[in-house]
Amino acid sequence: MPGTVVMKFGGTSVADASRLKRAAERIVAKREAGQHVVVVLSARGKETDRLIADAQEISSHPDPREMDMLLSTGERVSCALCAMAINDLGHRAISLTGSQAGIVTDTSHTKARILEVRADRIRAALDEDSIVLVAGFQGVSTAKDVTTLGRGGSDTTAVALAAAIGADECEIYTDVPGVFSADPRIVPDARKLDVVSFDEMLEMAASGAGVLQLRSVEYARNHGVRIHCRSSFDDAAGTFVVSEDEAKDKDMMENPLITAVTHSRGEARVTLIGLPDTPGVAGRVTTALADANVNIDMIIQNEPRTAGALAELSFTVPRDDVDAARVALQPIAAELGITLETDASMGKVSIVGAGMKSHPGVAAKVFSVLGAQEINIEMISTSPIRISCVVPAEKVEEAVKALHTAFDLSGADTIRPEQPFGEFAS
Amino acid sequence: MPGTVVMKFGGTSVADASRLKRAAERIVAKREAGQHVVVVLSARGKETDRLIADAQEISSHPDPREMDMLLSTGERVSCALCAMAINDLGHRAISLTGSQAGIVTDTSHTKARILEVRADRIRAALDEDSIVLVAGFQGVSTAKDVTTLGRGGSDTTAVALAAAIGADECEIYTDVPGVFSADPRIVPDARKLDVVSFDEMLEMAASGAGVLQLRSVEYARNHGVRIHCRSSFDDAAGTFVVSEDEAKDKDMMENPLITAVTHSRGEARVTLIGLPDTPGVAGRVTTALADANVNIDMIIQNEPRTAGALAELSFTVPRDDVDAARVALQPIAAELGITLETDASMGKVSIVGAGMKSHPGVAAKVFSVLGAQEINIEMISTSPIRISCVVPAEKVEEAVKALHTAFDLSGADTIRPEQPFGEFAS
Repeated sequence: MPGTVVMKFGGTSVADASRLKRAAERIVAKREAGQHVVVVLSARGKETDRLIADAQEISSHPDPREMDMLLSTGERVSCALCAMAINDLGHRAISLTGSQAGIVTDTSHTKARILEVRADRIRAALDEDSIVLVAGFQGVSTAKDVTTLGRGGSDTTAVALAAAIGADECEIYTDVPGVFSADPRIVPDARKLDVVSFDEMLEMAASGAGVLQLRSVEYARNHGVRIHCRSSFDDAAGTFVVSEDEAKDKDMMENPLITAVTHSRGEARVTLIGLPDTPGVAGRVTTALADANVNIDMIIQNEPRTAGALAELSFTVPRDDVDAARVALQPIAAELGITLETDASMGKVSIVGAGMKSHPGVAAKVFSVLGAQEINIEMISTSPIRISCVVPAEKVEEAVKALHTAFDLSGADTIRPEQPFGEFAS
Repeated sequence: MPGTVVMKFGGTSVADASRLKRAAERIVAKREAGQHVVVVLSARGKETDRLIADAQEISSHPDPREMDMLLSTGERVSCALCAMAINDLGHRAISLTGSQAGIVTDTSHTKARILEVRADRIRAALDEDSIVLVAGFQGVSTAKDVTTLGRGGSDTTAVALAAAIGADECEIYTDVPGVFSADPRIVPDARKLDVVSFDEMLEMAASGAGVLQLRSVEYARNHGVRIHCRSSFDDAAGTFVVSEDEAKDKDMMENPLITAVTHSRGEARVTLIGLPDTPGVAGRVTTALADANVNIDMIIQNEPRTAGALAELSFTVPRDDVDAARVALQPIAAELGITLETDASMGKVSIVGAGMKSHPGVAAKVFSVLGAQEINIEMISTSPIRISCVVPAEKVEEAVKALHTAFDLSGADTIRPEQPFGEFAS
């Protein structure tokens, strides 16, 4: 439906009565400006954490199906309360659960994937001039159970609804003014980016930028949904995440080589020493990790070139997964006589920019900048628009600053966020 | 399904982790004794009050549809957590929302009535040897919206499910040992009743006994569902609420004239003075009150026998409804020149007993007992098995004591409840 916008508010934007009423006023203002409005809300403030704590009081390994039943209540509460606030402002509003909104998912509880959006009920409500509030982060499985989409799932709900109803735009309201050229807590003069392409945003989200959830950006790219990531505390424009063509048009004056520096402090390196020279070992290792739900990021295999040297396989995993990786690999290591080493003190710094595709010298500059700071690069991975370096976690901040300066990413129009960079909403 | 029992636990029985785990143990013990188990849970402790407070922070007149969306989350949380606890005890458990359990209601939000129970999913889960946990107090309307059944609705959910699946019994676990011959806070040696007939329990619930919700008793009588009302804190038998035939069999040795004395302190009297002598005035008055959702209890009309005297109409309403009654009647009073008086300090004392049907002298005894205490009887209403007297609220306690003694209702086997009489669960 042209003339329709999806507005998504994170948990901090509805945390208490006054913030929730402010969100309601913004929603009503949008409607009064003539647009049809679908709203996606997260659970209020620390509500999801409270529910998780309740579950942990009961069980050390709560059943995933029941976790979904439990956690899905948080967003429903937000939506019902917001509907009340909008009604009091003289507009019709209706809250819908993920199931009522037609979000159909697979049956992978706590990390379900959206299979289909049957938006008939939303369309009918919009036709009746209602503002529609949808509980984010949740859906109904093909087995008719309540499912949740995993961390950051409300962003994905918003983008999926925008795609299904053909909305003009998906606005993600958050506690920062937009996407920045680096984390402003590390680089105080980081620049707010006006426009980012889907591909750049994907790389940034995957390499540590917390402001938008990775899957929501993937979904937006695949369905061509324009995202406007902006502050819930003021009316200033934030960051538009759009197709590369549109980004080029908008950004023509600047056309920067590099868009942003991102980072992560939570990496761990796992090294397998003394791999036998038989085919299929790497395959067994990665299969074991996949079965344990451990995502591998970078991977390096060293073939011994001198006689008697041992073959090594190293890879990085999120630090939280390092114990799971060790448990998954222990049987293979014991069987094949492999030594297993882990180092949980790793970090990662990345530069992202569509402009680097046609500039082969970027990698060399990154390495020399980090070298000049005497920061040891442990591993490297690249994509056409990203270069990532694993560095010691305690060197991450220094690396981000050095790269941001070297690539001249600061801007005069920098807006300093009042709150920390990167709300991870439900 | 023969061999199936429905167990309903109120909010205090699942208020914290240790109580919830205790309830889970009771549920599992029942299953291990060989019965199929369907469980109905209320929201935990003060959860419903918390949600109501959240709504009131947002709106002074919250939309009823949105209130239902909001409040229905409380019971879902209880069920999900209890399913986790049961899983940890080595049994399969599945939580269902009212909608998933097939509780279909009308569209009267915040006070919906059950139209139908489609228990296919419950039956399928029982067939798979699962313990089924159903969120009480809620259903799904014919318009596919979440509805709630009003105060005490979880009792009704339990009885309705017991009827739909043909359970042997519906156990209502509460914070008192059963139904008593009077409120033990007023009459310390009140007797716990072993057996009460549906009709007696209906009259008791309607006249102030808080332990079972009126609509659940109506539903049980209409569908022949045996209720066992018992303590969630020990294993002692409580009170069985059964058909009159079964009650007679069980209770043959006692066959008491009177079963219990009940009371209410929250009555108000509304008096209309100077009614014109035209037909239809009483009809207009009662219609106006029904439209305002005010339930009238007793009603008395005084036709003037002497010339010049004014005709009066008096009735009682719950004290909480007295303002609504005044608002509803003001226009009629103004139009017809009627004087409207209200007295919110009324109470009511009732005696209930199937045995009084064949003993016409009971009413006379009630009046003389109250007369001997110099308690003024303002209004009287009777049914074949109940006599109710409206008395000043401050005389209620004295009236209950006097009647309980006069009809000799105390018993040697009295069990003193540790907690107050009458949990009003959601």
